[in-house]
Amino acid sequence: MTISPSFPGIADQLARQQIELPSWAFGNSGTRFKVFSTPGTPRDPYEKIADAAQVHRYTGLAPTVALHIPWDLVDDFADLKRHAEEHGVALGTVNSNTFQDDDYKFGALTHVDEKIRQKAIDHHLQCIDVMHATGSRDLKIWLAEGSNYPGQEDMRSRQDRLHDSLSTIYDRLGDDQRLVLEYKFFEPSFYHTDVPDWGTSYVQTAALGDKAMVCLDTGHHAPGTNIEFIVMQLLRLGKLGSFDFNSRFYADDDLIVGAADPFQLFRILVEVIRGGGYDNPDVAFMLDQCHNVEDKIPGQIRSVLNVQEMTARALLLDRVALTAAQEAHDVLGANEIFMDAFQTDVRADLAAWRESRGLPANPMRAYLDSGYQQQIAEDRVGGVQAGWGA
Amino acid sequence: MTISPSFPGIADQLARQQIELPSWAFGNSGTRFKVFSTPGTPRDPYEKIADAAQVHRYTGLAPTVALHIPWDLVDDFADLKRHAEEHGVALGTVNSNTFQDDDYKFGALTHVDEKIRQKAIDHHLQCIDVMHATGSRDLKIWLAEGSNYPGQEDMRSRQDRLHDSLSTIYDRLGDDQRLVLEYKFFEPSFYHTDVPDWGTSYVQTAALGDKAMVCLDTGHHAPGTNIEFIVMQLLRLGKLGSFDFNSRFYADDDLIVGAADPFQLFRILVEVIRGGGYDNPDVAFMLDQCHNVEDKIPGQIRSVLNVQEMTARALLLDRVALTAAQEAHDVLGANEIFMDAFQTDVRADLAAWRESRGLPANPMRAYLDSGYQQQIAEDRVGGVQAGWGA
Amino acid sequence: MTISPSFPGIADQLARQQIELPSWAFGNSGTRFKVFSTPGTPRDPYEKIADAAQVHRYTGLAPTVALHIPWDLVDDFADLKRHAEEHGVALGTVNSNTFQDDDYKFGALTHVDEKIRQKAIDHHLQCIDVMHATGSRDLKIWLAEGSNYPGQEDMRSRQDRLHDSLSTIYDRLGDDQRLVLEYKFFEPSFYHTDVPDWGTSYVQTAALGDKAMVCLDTGHHAPGTNIEFIVMQLLRLGKLGSFDFNSRFYADDDLIVGAADPFQLFRILVEVIRGGGYDNPDVAFMLDQCHNVEDKIPGQIRSVLNVQEMTARALLLDRVALTAAQEAHDVLGANEIFMDAFQTDVRADLAAWRESRGLPANPMRAYLDSGYQQQIAEDRVGGVQAGWGA
Amino acid sequence: MTISPSFPGIADQLARQQIELPSWAFGNSGTRFKVFSTPGTPRDPYEKIADAAQVHRYTGLAPTVALHIPWDLVDDFADLKRHAEEHGVALGTVNSNTFQDDDYKFGALTHVDEKIRQKAIDHHLQCIDVMHATGSRDLKIWLAEGSNYPGQEDMRSRQDRLHDSLSTIYDRLGDDQRLVLEYKFFEPSFYHTDVPDWGTSYVQTAALGDKAMVCLDTGHHAPGTNIEFIVMQLLRLGKLGSFDFNSRFYADDDLIVGAADPFQLFRILVEVIRGGGYDNPDVAFMLDQCHNVEDKIPGQIRSVLNVQEMTARALLLDRVALTAAQEAHDVLGANEIFMDAFQTDVRADLAAWRESRGLPANPMRAYLDSGYQQQIAEDRVGGVQAGWGA
Repeated sequence: MTISPSFPGIADQLARQQIELPSWAFGNSGTRFKVFSTPGTPRDPYEKIADAAQVHRYTGLAPTVALHIPWDLVDDFADLKRHAEEHGVALGTVNSNTFQDDDYKFGALTHVDEKIRQKAIDHHLQCIDVMHATGSRDLKIWLAEGSNYPGQEDMRSRQDRLHDSLSTIYDRLGDDQRLVLEYKFFEPSFYHTDVPDWGTSYVQTAALGDKAMVCLDTGHHAPGTNIEFIVMQLLRLGKLGSFDFNSRFYADDDLIVGAADPFQLFRILVEVIRGGGYDNPDVAFMLDQCHNVEDKIPGQIRSVLNVQEMTARALLLDRVALTAAQEAHDVLGANEIFMDAFQTDVRADLAAWRESRGLPANPMRAYLDSGYQQQIAEDRVGGVQAGWGA
Repeated sequence: MTISPSFPGIADQLARQQIELPSWAFGNSGTRFKVFSTPGTPRDPYEKIADAAQVHRYTGLAPTVALHIPWDLVDDFADLKRHAEEHGVALGTVNSNTFQDDDYKFGALTHVDEKIRQKAIDHHLQCIDVMHATGSRDLKIWLAEGSNYPGQEDMRSRQDRLHDSLSTIYDRLGDDQRLVLEYKFFEPSFYHTDVPDWGTSYVQTAALGDKAMVCLDTGHHAPGTNIEFIVMQLLRLGKLGSFDFNSRFYADDDLIVGAADPFQLFRILVEVIRGGGYDNPDVAFMLDQCHNVEDKIPGQIRSVLNVQEMTARALLLDRVALTAAQEAHDVLGANEIFMDAFQTDVRADLAAWRESRGLPANPMRAYLDSGYQQQIAEDRVGGVQAGWGA
Repeated sequence: MTISPSFPGIADQLARQQIELPSWAFGNSGTRFKVFSTPGTPRDPYEKIADAAQVHRYTGLAPTVALHIPWDLVDDFADLKRHAEEHGVALGTVNSNTFQDDDYKFGALTHVDEKIRQKAIDHHLQCIDVMHATGSRDLKIWLAEGSNYPGQEDMRSRQDRLHDSLSTIYDRLGDDQRLVLEYKFFEPSFYHTDVPDWGTSYVQTAALGDKAMVCLDTGHHAPGTNIEFIVMQLLRLGKLGSFDFNSRFYADDDLIVGAADPFQLFRILVEVIRGGGYDNPDVAFMLDQCHNVEDKIPGQIRSVLNVQEMTARALLLDRVALTAAQEAHDVLGANEIFMDAFQTDVRADLAAWRESRGLPANPMRAYLDSGYQQQIAEDRVGGVQAGWGA
Repeated sequence: MTISPSFPGIADQLARQQIELPSWAFGNSGTRFKVFSTPGTPRDPYEKIADAAQVHRYTGLAPTVALHIPWDLVDDFADLKRHAEEHGVALGTVNSNTFQDDDYKFGALTHVDEKIRQKAIDHHLQCIDVMHATGSRDLKIWLAEGSNYPGQEDMRSRQDRLHDSLSTIYDRLGDDQRLVLEYKFFEPSFYHTDVPDWGTSYVQTAALGDKAMVCLDTGHHAPGTNIEFIVMQLLRLGKLGSFDFNSRFYADDDLIVGAADPFQLFRILVEVIRGGGYDNPDVAFMLDQCHNVEDKIPGQIRSVLNVQEMTARALLLDRVALTAAQEAHDVLGANEIFMDAFQTDVRADLAAWRESRGLPANPMRAYLDSGYQQQIAEDRVGGVQAGWGA
């Protein structure tokens, strides 16, 4: 394999890429109709982290694992942290969960009842305690809150209560900690969602302060939305805190990032680089996916490789030529320069580059050949498989 | 309360309206994130039917209950039939289920493995046996089959296998039985669905014969689809076998019919009447909904009342005047005649008419005052609540 | 005709409703495929205002007319103002136009070339001059800017140039004048739009100051967007400057407001009232529609009546009962209270109320009987009919 | 440049690819807001064909040009045919036009007035006469018919009249001629379209006979539609007559094919090949695009190259391996095989292959260097530029 002329120029940048894995991607997931189980599925947070470490081992791309509380509650987070480090990874973002307790049927941080709001706030304060134990920087908040029927809830007062609740949580953050607020177009609520769009996440986090940022989940938009525009705008505003990468055909499908529309992923990464969001600690790259029918560890390997490949293409974009064509209003010329980067097959170069860094040329093959999958399928018999959802 | 001048003319037609209830609407349902439980939820098919009978008791609109196999499997269907009759209702459409068995992870009627196809076919033959025991006419087939990733499956050969499987099932139908094939745009598969649109359901059922018809679920279309056009076309082709009524804002939300877009429901009913599909035994009206956050029996009462109210408005449409305006290309005049029917508040007339037929003027109020809900909440303690989904 | 018990309570509020008409609604419009012409179409701004005055004469709802520059350029705006006043109406919002000059093929306020940006800025300064002559308060800016192909333009620098251009325009505003920035999801650009969503319009206007507000056009959103949520949020932020009312099935169809989804219009108006945006001079109600196949003056009459009817229903909403049901988490009860207002047929009450105020009970009938339409069809022969679009 | 190992195997198939160009792509086009003009735009059908011939000259891909009647009406079609042949191309599909005559405001083939229907039928018979003169095989019918407001038209009787009108046209076809019926989701009608989906086009053409086929325009679907599924189904039914290629982000944007979602174009071509639709004279490949802001001849060159590049990738798909992975339910393996073909950069191979066939390695560069564009810009001064739309 050979390195193409322009590839060496991006090697250093590629070497600094880090993508956080979600612990829940290693558990079973599914739709409201069915969650299929799989041999070898982890039964506790320790096994999830061991699996996540496999992804990093073969790709060098995934040094941290995000936790989800209470799914990943353990008695001793210092011990879990040590376990992660022993496996070559670190614990990352802490995700709160206010959608699986019966008390939250009609809201959590927005609930009309102060007691339930306080319960939800306390859950977040507990998450911050976990962050101190794990050394995590980011508290990521996705709110499943909303309503199913017009008239069911008063959207305005919920928005105000949301601000109050978030303020209380925000005030508890340490100096080096952040609150990252995700938005989502719909689901599990079908009429209204309390944080449905980037605008709402922006105004809510702007009202909190500099340690509050927006999380952009690539699957959480209306059909036809130009996501890279939002990336551009949030970077311009200094408010893009993190990505939840995945892909979708219709709704929030949570498929492997890059699987549904690789060109969209490329455009997003181009805009990330354009706006200074690449190799920038303020902009975290994370996955948020479900592997309903495919194997989970290979699914995560494919995902980080997809991000890496599209990042390489985006880094190859000849921006000097592009700017010249744009300023000359050479529509087809500019588009061709743009597409030239997208159409470049970087796989052989990446394989050679991986080998030069002591990684397997083909991480997927290396993992499949390792015997790990067979081993966990044999070992992890009995117990309750970790699941996602209800 | 008084009867308006034009209302008497539609009273007879209203009296013949029948809407089938889904047994599963009385069990718990939810999203992939959470299924909330509710006091009083049925624990077996007998209790579901008892609850469904309450809807009919107060509305006079819901004389039959659809079953879902295996959710509603009982040892003795003749006994279940008697139970229903004692409660004043009958058993209706039988719905098959090929989406909750691990064997069907990669398809059922379309599966590449003949053994699994045969298992799925056998399930449908078993459903036909149930139909003989219950006296049901219709076998309704909704297929959750499809794929999540491009390349995962060969769509073409699946379509051919689907035809073969359906043919085998079709051949087993009795002379007075029908097969009704539902289509769905997406979910639980996210890349491709084997019966995604009315066109596919039409060509598949047309290839079977006259006893195969299309089921139109109002929530199973792409954004912006003109559903009443499909109603018109299927009636024109003699292939509209049944409706699954519900409503949606975004995806297949399965909300109460008429809740999201009452004007769309009106337009659909206008087209049903226009095409001879109303009070026509060949076109079954059914509900297919989930009451995730609202009470289930009242949710079903609201649903059948919504259909009744919009049917009344649609029946009030002055078709002679409308045709004259249409033929004169009086765009605003025609639209005004159309909207005049939609904007007519029929609730007082319906209340008076109900009382004249020995029904409560306000079925919802009558049910809520009956004490039934409190009674089942007290009685149905222990046991496993009936659920929907995984 | 009789007044229902609850109607008198809203009469005063209804009496204060004002809806601004767009001068361009009276000219011919169409699609990229064809613009059909109609007898009687105005040939200059004077005739457009005369037609708009007819709408106000029969409805009492439309006391002002928005201008579009350069479509409505006249030599003497003081004279046009007098003409309007003689017809019983006033001149309202001034709309700029930067989409029909060849220079703006690749942008106007965002153009990479400073000379073209300056030309576009100057056009807006000219509009402000017109505002001084007409006494208009609002400068409404809709930008057709964007790109068709990925890579064609640098979205980020365009956003920065947009800020600079708007700042220059903003600085020229008089103390009592406002700049209102419209957003639009897509069209005429198909890949990216420089102000595609409320979030962008919000951050751009927030960066300008208190005299800059957001204009919400009801047709300018992605499929499935909850528009009333945006209304709520912008009112909460104090940034909802005006509405462009119309309706849509698919894209920016610019159909008669309330024609496609009357329930959505109701929900929007409920949220306007909830948030203090009704009868609030800071929140202007305007129409922005195209009457491609229907007569234009009757089309505008139907439009303002649709808004009035839905406003009446929204005002009838029993908020005390609604709040109680919401706080009790009575989902179906709250929804029923909400729907009760929507389903109330207010037409007879409105007719009686109109007569009590010296207006025709049926404004549409009164207009059609007036002979005006026949008169203009006869009189306005020759000359070039005013058109909209290219 | 070198030929990769697998490329030679597809060279013969690539050599047989033919893509028909639309004459109207060379005229000016735009949106309802503005049509920008361009130096060098053709002023008559002769100049359009001369321009189209340039595309074929440099790519070898576009041997035929589709005509649009009446836009391309000439006194002597035999002369136009000779003109085409002299330029190295042939005349292809004849497209009818029933959307730009005032008589068709409320329909053409579906119009309630028999005289107008007959006028529209006669126009199609005239098109068949043209086909005899030009030697064209296909009559392509796209109907702009529909309505803007619910109640405006009776959809059912329009569907029946459509059948009658099409039958009359169909009966006039010669033995070797075909009727190809396009469907379109929406626009220029906004409420209902008379042929909105593949199902309607299928049932209408199936009712005519074997010489009637469906035309699939890739831009004419609802958001989220799986277009390759439709390709599969129509090929399976033997009813896919032709493609109108283009691409879209939101509506019917008519952008350069492959520009918005190259992976979708790949998937479509994979399914074409899978179903026997490639190199099959029954399945015509055509472009239907608008070059609103980019140069037209280069825009067409880019378009046919995009189709060629994606065809090459689709032909490279290892179907044996794919089938094996599919049958083993190796979801990630199958997807990787699929993506491997998509990610292969075929440009260098194609360039070498072109040179081996006497074509320029880089057709775009060759055209731009030829001086043709400058020549027509100088020569074609005066006269009325050919336009598309109103």
